[in-house]
Amino acid sequence: MTASPKPDVTVVGAGPTGALAALLLARRGYRVNVFEFRDDPRVQVAKPKQAKEGSLLGDAVASLAKVADAAKRSINLTLSHRGISGLARAGLDEAALQLAVPVRGRMIHDREGNIKLQPYDPDPERVMYSIGRETINSWLLDQLSEHEADGRVQLFFGHKVVRVRPDGSADFERRSDGKTHSTPPAKLLGCDGTFSKVRTEMSRCSRLSISLDYIEHGYKELAISPAADGRHKMPAEGLHIWPGSEVMLIALPNGNGSFTCTIFGDFTFLESLKTEESVRRFFADTWPDTLELMPDLPQQYLRNPNAALSTVRCSPWHLNGNLLLLGDAAHGVVPFYGQGMNCAFEDCLLFDQAREADADDWGTALPTFSAERKRATDALAELAIDNYVEMRDKTVSRSFLLKCWLHESLHGLLGERWQPSLHSAVTFTSLPYNEARATCEWQDAMLVRAGCAIGAVAIGTGALAAMRGLAR
Amino acid sequence: MTASPKPDVTVVGAGPTGALAALLLARRGYRVNVFEFRDDPRVQVAKPKQAKEGSLLGDAVASLAKVADAAKRSINLTLSHRGISGLARAGLDEAALQLAVPVRGRMIHDREGNIKLQPYDPDPERVMYSIGRETINSWLLDQLSEHEADGRVQLFFGHKVVRVRPDGSADFERRSDGKTHSTPPAKLLGCDGTFSKVRTEMSRCSRLSISLDYIEHGYKELAISPAADGRHKMPAEGLHIWPGSEVMLIALPNGNGSFTCTIFGDFTFLESLKTEESVRRFFADTWPDTLELMPDLPQQYLRNPNAALSTVRCSPWHLNGNLLLLGDAAHGVVPFYGQGMNCAFEDCLLFDQAREADADDWGTALPTFSAERKRATDALAELAIDNYVEMRDKTVSRSFLLKCWLHESLHGLLGERWQPSLHSAVTFTSLPYNEARATCEWQDAMLVRAGCAIGAVAIGTGALAAMRGLAR
Repeated sequence: MTASPKPDVTVVGAGPTGALAALLLARRGYRVNVFEFRDDPRVQVAKPKQAKEGSLLGDAVASLAKVADAAKRSINLTLSHRGISGLARAGLDEAALQLAVPVRGRMIHDREGNIKLQPYDPDPERVMYSIGRETINSWLLDQLSEHEADGRVQLFFGHKVVRVRPDGSADFERRSDGKTHSTPPAKLLGCDGTFSKVRTEMSRCSRLSISLDYIEHGYKELAISPAADGRHKMPAEGLHIWPGSEVMLIALPNGNGSFTCTIFGDFTFLESLKTEESVRRFFADTWPDTLELMPDLPQQYLRNPNAALSTVRCSPWHLNGNLLLLGDAAHGVVPFYGQGMNCAFEDCLLFDQAREADADDWGTALPTFSAERKRATDALAELAIDNYVEMRDKTVSRSFLLKCWLHESLHGLLGERWQPSLHSAVTFTSLPYNEARATCEWQDAMLVRAGCAIGAVAIGTGALAAMRGLAR
Repeated sequence: MTASPKPDVTVVGAGPTGALAALLLARRGYRVNVFEFRDDPRVQVAKPKQAKEGSLLGDAVASLAKVADAAKRSINLTLSHRGISGLARAGLDEAALQLAVPVRGRMIHDREGNIKLQPYDPDPERVMYSIGRETINSWLLDQLSEHEADGRVQLFFGHKVVRVRPDGSADFERRSDGKTHSTPPAKLLGCDGTFSKVRTEMSRCSRLSISLDYIEHGYKELAISPAADGRHKMPAEGLHIWPGSEVMLIALPNGNGSFTCTIFGDFTFLESLKTEESVRRFFADTWPDTLELMPDLPQQYLRNPNAALSTVRCSPWHLNGNLLLLGDAAHGVVPFYGQGMNCAFEDCLLFDQAREADADDWGTALPTFSAERKRATDALAELAIDNYVEMRDKTVSRSFLLKCWLHESLHGLLGERWQPSLHSAVTFTSLPYNEARATCEWQDAMLVRAGCAIGAVAIGTGALAAMRGLAR
């Protein structure tokens, strides 16, 4: 029995999504060509080939690489269940987690510099992992490069996609000399992020509706460098949060003793601090401990750019049985659920499962996969905006906290049959996002009914007692 | 008194919107550079310079040009009050209307080929004008070229915009040799249509939210050629409509005796007719007279492409006091209100009025102009979709027809103080679209109240009469 030959695949974008998607396809026996607009991120931090892992030279270079990494403007991500499942599909979960720092809960800073840990989940095994975008990206590219030797994968950096056609053929412009490189008809995955050019091209030749919605808040990154002894200046097992009325600061640990901080706030506010003095005054008044942690905070603040946050929705994600969008290109979300990369890796996992189930029949698979997955990612987009609104408007009430306590208690009693919180269901399970939301809405409704029933019994009992009292 | 020198303006896009915007700026004393991706549309239909208008040679060339025009796939537009007002601002309304064919109402075809005229408005003066997109565009470019002589205007065709910066500087790539042409900081108008590259570039360097929504229906153009004697095969004073359950066909007259037809329908349906025989059978069963009017209809149907229809919304339309989007680039609409070009020309008019009012202070003007105008164009986008839904679902009821008759009667009594219909207020007045809608909603509410009052009086009178009857 001979299987029909698999079509070649063009992957546009070699960020974490494109790299994992390409890896899974290569492992399934596809020949994959990966095109990336940027230069190879590993060039600045490349390990010399002769230095074996674990050797002294290798370690020294790796450590230098980490310093270089930390010096660059870098985005920190949290890897949780869904992302890890995606990596596990390629047999890479355990190795990837070696690069990450486990984070057990939120560590809330008060004005006096006291820190309080709020675990993410009653189950101490349910943790998230902090990892730099560059770190996971470069490492995934290393794994992908191993397939270059066997001819399954070719990587093209510095290549900008300029045209994509319904047959999956495409034109790329090489940045170094402006020459155009055309690829023949193939399957094509658009993994080129929020501003996806593949998506724009698909929209031009089909009826792909797109929306890109910015929120009023933006962010700026800041860095806490390691202490003199190379260790973390604060406990590394938490996502540090400094709540504020207009802005919020968070910090995620890196493996090298540093933290990457992000300040979120209304753009108008972020832009209103224009001098070192005004920055210093604001932080001294709001979160005094931050100036001890970052003596150069005012300089960093003025040097680093403000970045915008948006939600991307589009439909359909596929065209002609040949083209498919994955990750942020299909469904960019605001970062307030920490699910961007997790969701993208889950895309890769589910698409690979579909490849297995349908014996690589893309034509049938793409519409089904896209429609089903879009229901989940639309729900995630809403959940992330809901979290943003909640954080922005500080709407957490006492009844909300009571509800949390009740759900956690029920989870303790019933185990997996009762989700301790929507956050847990999103972060620590594989339930599709829309089903996670529906399950938790159902649980909330059950709590309310139970509350009403208990209240009714209490009132009834009281009334009965009173009537008996009267009858006496 | 010396006025401060006016900044140079870069206009991206030389379609009807860009051409009129550039004309108005040139007349106001600005130096304007216009860049267009396509080639000069006049090159194929250029009049030899020596042939004066009205001369025999001139007429012959013009007539040839019209034939060439008709042979091309061309989009027909209806010019009405708002569009004419925009042209009038440049002193061009009367001359432009010479190129157009007046259309007094809808001409509905039944299955037997009978035609019934439904005037657009009780006032016979209120008509629309049918004109080809290429015709009005080329003619506006001719007007613009007259300013090339005095150095106010420079036109660059075959130049693709590749980068736009917040200071209004931009890079263009010349298609002929791939060379890049950069323009210095300036004011910049993005008039580059539904798929605006200027908008994409603005979104990359600011927080411009964008949505592009396709509807399920698409369209295909067909042409009815002139009769043997060169005249129109049907009455030319109407927008011909062939209603259908799944599709709708319309035809707009051209000056040369031809009609441009558009068939609207669900994409799945449009694509389902794949052979000459199936096309012929469908039209013979649905609208038998169309096959007489277009003996080559099956061939045209299979040759001409299906095109998609979308709504574009974005916000904000401006950046940094330097950049502004106008026309479809800012607010593309589906064509079911015949307002696309009219709305874009009204943009140009209102922006020119703002230039006059604020003594050319763009920084102050852009936010105000955009915010106010967006309220109007958002309303138009909804009105156009409402019309699409109404046409698609055939929701016109008897009570709707009664309402129409009542409004028209009140308009007859009260004149301008009562709009005969929302269609009239949109098509034949300068009321901002949102106010037109609000006015007509108020009028509807008044009718309902009056109806209730009359009903109550009738019931009351009836009851009184009955009581008197009982009392006797």
